[in-house]
Parts: sequence; structure tokens; C-alpha cells
Amino acid sequence: MKSYRQELWFNTRRRREYLNLTPQVEECLQKSGIREGLCLVNAMHITASVFINDNESGLHQDFETWLEKLAPEQPHSQYHHNGAEDNADAHLKRQVMGREVVVAITDGKLDFGPWEQIFYGEFDGGRRKRVLVKIIGE
Amino acid sequence: MKSYRQELWFNTRRRREYLNLTPQVEECLQKSGIREGLCLVNAMHITASVFINDNESGLHQDFETWLEKLAPEQPHSQYHHNGAEDNADAHLKRQVMGREVVVAITDGKLDFGPWEQIFYGEFDGGRRKRVLVKIIGE
Amino acid sequence: MKSYRQELWFNTRRRREYLNLTPQVEECLQKSGIREGLCLVNAMHITASVFINDNESGLHQDFETWLEKLAPEQPHSQYHHNGAEDNADAHLKRQVMGREVVVAITDGKLDFGPWEQIFYGEFDGGRRKRVLVKIIGE
Repeated sequence: MKSYRQELWFNTRRRREYLNLTPQVEECLQKSGIREGLCLVNAMHITASVFINDNESGLHQDFETWLEKLAPEQPHSQYHHNGAEDNADAHLKRQVMGREVVVAITDGKLDFGPWEQIFYGEFDGGRRKRVLVKIIGE
Repeated sequence: MKSYRQELWFNTRRRREYLNLTPQVEECLQKSGIREGLCLVNAMHITASVFINDNESGLHQDFETWLEKLAPEQPHSQYHHNGAEDNADAHLKRQVMGREVVVAITDGKLDFGPWEQIFYGEFDGGRRKRVLVKIIGE
Repeated sequence: MKSYRQELWFNTRRRREYLNLTPQVEECLQKSGIREGLCLVNAMHITASVFINDNESGLHQDFETWLEKLAPEQPHSQYHHNGAEDNADAHLKRQVMGREVVVAITDGKLDFGPWEQIFYGEFDGGRRKRVLVKIIGE
């Protein structure tokens, strides 16, 4: 069994933002030399998500509106967690969107359907954050 | 390390529907010959889910009502994504229900608690869709 | 490839409760002797979750309030599933919080960011429940 590990780092300008990680994960896979296996991609922070959905900017605007409806940022005082912080909403949004994805590796490629793309969802940005890519297989 | 890959195809009649995949995943596992490892089952489309919950039709009706409350289909015009499409709600519902499950394989079986069953959740049906089963282990 | 399996059992006093599993999962990893691989931790019951988030009691109170808003327990009669049971809300809450986490194992350790901790989220407690830890790698 082979394994490969790499961290991807980001610093978003806005509090909430979506970044397409697919090219960087494909690059990790190339470097790993693994042809058959599983690839885990997870946020290493608890106010961010890694998820698979459509690479369409209208949908990303819909995510913003929808997540603000399900777990509004304001008022900060509505959350117990916000005694010393102001990011309780980001911890909740991350639960809806998920921490991680596991992707099959087949014949040296991410084994994806036609529209699947991997995104980093930032919900408390403006500081450096990282994503872990771990691939096992052979 | 051994690996096994199979696609499962569906064509639902209704826009939203739940299908029990457990027997088909068990069949994949038998064919794989793998006794110890991990089994990934994921939707290959971004308006559908694979998840584990109860095989109980009343609960599936509750999912329908609940997901329509959290991410209503209508009016289509409420979503930016629906400029050219009408399935933004399906992309959101899929985030709540999840893209994939990872199941332990122990002694040649899906290592499940008493009520765990694997479901395909379709949120934009009426066309052919597929699920990927990838098993690694030995 | 090596594999390791262990069940962790709980009996919560309250209907809803959050337990930090990180020390027990670390103990499983030590016993496994696995240095590089993947660790799956999943609820074996369908009214409970395993998820990764902050070890902060204020946030756990926020989870309680938020999940009750998204999928209220009462009135029980609002759910079809509650003909013979009263835990439909627990099946829904578990979908928001997720069934499982997959954690990278690197150099014999859970490969975590600074604040990542593994929690068991109980949504229908007061009876014995279990979590599965399955580790594969070498």
C-alpha cells in the first residue's frame, strides 16, 4: 500500500467564499503515483467545508443566501459560542456543507461523474486556512 | 491491496424518490472478494445523495416534507442557479443529505448496526443517474 | 494492508447529548499499530451522528437550539415516522450532523488541524448505542 499527504493553504479575502480545489487535488494525485485507491480531502479547520457540487457561480450565490437563512451570522449575540468569538454561524454552516469528501481513484484519475468538482467552502475567512489531501492505494 | 469498482444505474419516475441500494452494494462486495477494508458509495451526480438511515416509508415521507421546508423547489425564480435550469433546490437538498457513505468491511460483510441501510436519494429525477461503488482492502 | 476494528458503547442520560470521542479513537489507533492509512468512525445507529467540530460547550448548546429549529422534536404527531415511534426528529438531525467521519492517519497519529475533535451526537438517548472504529493502512 502506498500513501501520499499534502496540505493546501488558502487565505480568503471575504468571510464566506467558495474555491474550486479540483486542479490542486488532481495535481496531488499525479504526484502520488497511486492508480487505485481512495482520496480523502478534508478541511483542517472547523469553520470551513470541503464538498462536491456544481462549478456554477449562480449556485454559489444560492449557497450564500440559503446558509444565511439556515444559520444566520447576525446577530452575533444569538449564539452562546459568541461570548469570546463571532463565528458560531460558521461552525453550523460547516455541518450542513460537510467537513470532507472521499473520492475513488480509478486508473490514476479522480473517478467522477460528469459535473463533480471539489470545493472549499470558507465561512470565517480573512485568515490562513488549510485543507488536507490524503491518498491511499497502489 | 485489492480494489473493486462498479456503477449502479437508476431512472426514477418522480422528481424526488428514495431507493434502497443495500442489496446491490452487498452484491458488489461479494463479487469483489474483499474481506477487510472500506467501501465507498457515492452519487456520481450533484443533485442526488447516498446516505444511511431507516428503511421506513413514513420516514421517507418526512424527508420529503422536511427537505421541501429547508430548501423549497418552488418558486424556481428564487434561485440564481435557475436562470437556465430548474434544479437549484436539488443541489441544496443533496448537501443536507450528503454525497457519499463510507462503510467498513469486516469478515466479508458490510459492518452495519441493526437498522443501517444504504439509500439513494434522488432530487432531480426522470433521467438516468448513477452511483459508484468502490471497495478497497484485501 | 492491516486493519483494526473496535466498537465504542455509550448510554446517554439525556435524549440529546454530545460526547468527545477523540481520546478513545486515539487509543484504538495506538492498539492498531497502523502508521499510515484511513480511520473511519461511524454511528452504528440511525438516530445519532459522528462529526468533527469544536470542543466548546457554548457551541454544543448552539447545536441543540439550532437543530431544534431545523428539525423540532415536538409535536411528535407532525411526523409520519412517529406512528409507532417518537424519534423522527432524531433521524433528521442525524442527517444534518452526518453519520461518519474519515480521518487521515499520518505517522501513527490522527492527522488533525489545531481544533479538530471527534464527537458523538446523540439525538435519541437513554439506551445503549455504539460507534464503530475501523482503521486500514500499514
